[in-house]
Amino acid sequence: MTGPDTPTAQRSTPLARRTGVMRSSKLRELIAATTAGPVLSLGGGLPPPEAFPGEALAAAADRVLTTGAARALQYSPTEGDPDLLGLIAAGLRERLGLPDPTGRLLVTTGSQQALDLLAKVLVDPGDAVVVESPAYVGALRAMAAYEPRLIEVPADDDGLDTRALELALRHGLRPKLCYLVATFSNPSGATLSACRRAHLADLAAHYGFLVIEDDPYWQLRFTGDHLPPVASRGEHVAYLGSFSKVIAPGLRVGYLVVPTGLIRAVVVAKQATDLNSSALTQRLVADLIGDEAWFAGHVARLRRLYAERAEALVTAVQTLPDRPLWVRRPAGGMFAWAGLSSTVDGRITAMAVASAAMRRGVAVVPGDEFSVGGSFPRELRLSFSMLGPADLREAVARLGAAVTEL
Amino acid sequence: MTGPDTPTAQRSTPLARRTGVMRSSKLRELIAATTAGPVLSLGGGLPPPEAFPGEALAAAADRVLTTGAARALQYSPTEGDPDLLGLIAAGLRERLGLPDPTGRLLVTTGSQQALDLLAKVLVDPGDAVVVESPAYVGALRAMAAYEPRLIEVPADDDGLDTRALELALRHGLRPKLCYLVATFSNPSGATLSACRRAHLADLAAHYGFLVIEDDPYWQLRFTGDHLPPVASRGEHVAYLGSFSKVIAPGLRVGYLVVPTGLIRAVVVAKQATDLNSSALTQRLVADLIGDEAWFAGHVARLRRLYAERAEALVTAVQTLPDRPLWVRRPAGGMFAWAGLSSTVDGRITAMAVASAAMRRGVAVVPGDEFSVGGSFPRELRLSFSMLGPADLREAVARLGAAVTEL
Repeated sequence: MTGPDTPTAQRSTPLARRTGVMRSSKLRELIAATTAGPVLSLGGGLPPPEAFPGEALAAAADRVLTTGAARALQYSPTEGDPDLLGLIAAGLRERLGLPDPTGRLLVTTGSQQALDLLAKVLVDPGDAVVVESPAYVGALRAMAAYEPRLIEVPADDDGLDTRALELALRHGLRPKLCYLVATFSNPSGATLSACRRAHLADLAAHYGFLVIEDDPYWQLRFTGDHLPPVASRGEHVAYLGSFSKVIAPGLRVGYLVVPTGLIRAVVVAKQATDLNSSALTQRLVADLIGDEAWFAGHVARLRRLYAERAEALVTAVQTLPDRPLWVRRPAGGMFAWAGLSSTVDGRITAMAVASAAMRRGVAVVPGDEFSVGGSFPRELRLSFSMLGPADLREAVARLGAAVTEL
Repeated sequence: MTGPDTPTAQRSTPLARRTGVMRSSKLRELIAATTAGPVLSLGGGLPPPEAFPGEALAAAADRVLTTGAARALQYSPTEGDPDLLGLIAAGLRERLGLPDPTGRLLVTTGSQQALDLLAKVLVDPGDAVVVESPAYVGALRAMAAYEPRLIEVPADDDGLDTRALELALRHGLRPKLCYLVATFSNPSGATLSACRRAHLADLAAHYGFLVIEDDPYWQLRFTGDHLPPVASRGEHVAYLGSFSKVIAPGLRVGYLVVPTGLIRAVVVAKQATDLNSSALTQRLVADLIGDEAWFAGHVARLRRLYAERAEALVTAVQTLPDRPLWVRRPAGGMFAWAGLSSTVDGRITAMAVASAAMRRGVAVVPGDEFSVGGSFPRELRLSFSMLGPADLREAVARLGAAVTEL
């Protein structure tokens, strides 16, 4: 448990205050850098172009715009397109074992918006919000806008350490929210164990906080058995899903399931925020996932694509001369957590490695980016989604050389 | 100047508090009602299906998804697709006479999101925010989420009464924001006069507040000359544009121009809120508006469509037996402001008329919906966008019968 508070800047002007808290992202700047030249990117967590079902979407667009244009081009209900809601609800019941989410489900403009809506509805300045550490930077930013006290609870190979959380709860911590990516976490690649899932659901019920389970990667499993989500184990869970990783981020279609008592407030907040998400992109997603055989085949193809890349990355890191880096092998998703080996000079930081790697044309994100307290000075997030196996090997070789150079 | 504060509910729980302030919309419920049966709707401000360029969009989708799918399906820069930003900036310079907006322009998920972002960055609980009265309900809702003190300044045939605003400013009012739809306002249909535009820009500069000029309808002018926007007259203006009314709401593509000093904070807030707007729908808009001849022809067609409908509605109201309603003839847009004539019994309210009309299968929105202070008990908003001339005449006949019945 690191538990540093967010810096509370002066309340001189709201503009200055909020710009201070809602810092921009080194990650984003690194991603921007990667688009400028021939950089091999282990940085951003983007699906590669070859993962996009471009032809299927073109065919879907033709269907949707020639036979149902009036519906695809109009405002949609704030909760979302009814057909899409039905398909999502069926999937959650059948594949994820969630209790029927009908009536407490809404479509969001990507799952980033779900984070914003939950924080908007629930977080007051100074409220305690637990996040796994390291945590997805987008969640840190979404929360920061509402000025909570962020409490970072360490995550290990089995995800968020629920015993550490329980200890703090027993000693008086009363969070309003607890945010985590339980399956193939961004950035750590770790997956919360079955036993910790049950424990976390129990803690949420006992201490009265809401778990935010952000689950965009679960379909991208390479090995091992599917684990039912935390949301299938208790009622104090908001469940966030997304089509960004299994269809395309450019559609901005995600969804949110909340406890029944929260749905009205979240829908009203959604209406105030952007009225509704794009009807057109919702209809496109409904068209594609409505063809179950196609969608299953597409997801299976993505699983093979990312599994091959993860294997290439991890093997390349583990076979670097002198082993300058350790790496955690993920069971799915897009990310591997890595760090400088203990044999590397203790004065060398991940930030210095990231800079040296960038000079060699390789983008990586230093671990500190995933914490408000600077907890990961020697760690790195390596994304294997963007590059094929040969490029991954080349990128890792340059990364190893960057460490050796330092 | 009515100036009622928003009700500040108990701070018992944030959920209860925010549900209280962010009330749902009678308008929305009326719109929902209209989709249930054969109702003639003068209610919602929706473009009708015949206004959508379905075929042009299908062709654009084919182009965008077969030759540029990697870009249309990926995350876009938070500020927006560069091509679309360039086209919007050129249009603002050339057609609207705005100073070059490059570098202080971003794409939003509809202009509703622009309202949310500005309020998120600038409004603290208790801050004074001026709104024209009557005002667009979506703006009232977007602001309410951040708990300002809403100050309603009356609008007449020439839009927001800037002399009334100046009087209040001289007596100590210090608003952070002033929201209005200067051209063909929703709900009143009124257009701010040239002289008031200059006056408002001067007041904003002198008293140091930001004007939010929401301008989704300016292209839909039926008569009279184009008036340069308030944003062309001063630097203390945020300008909101939208493609919802001239292409389609289902794309959720709007944009926001802010003073240079605000752009960084707004982009950071946008990133925290939904990362970026749909790259696909941005690429579709860029494709369509990039064909200037097509776009000009399409907008001309929309102008003729709505002009004919406005004329039919206003004439029908003005020729009702015994003239139970007055109506203001709009010079453009989608709305006419109307009300009960002084000859109608003073105990009859617009709400009662709306209910009686709904029993006769006609939806209208009572004026109180457009105010936090219940300022318009005898007024109605009549939207002429959804119905053809014959249906408009029938709807108005039933509306007149509903008043007579009461």
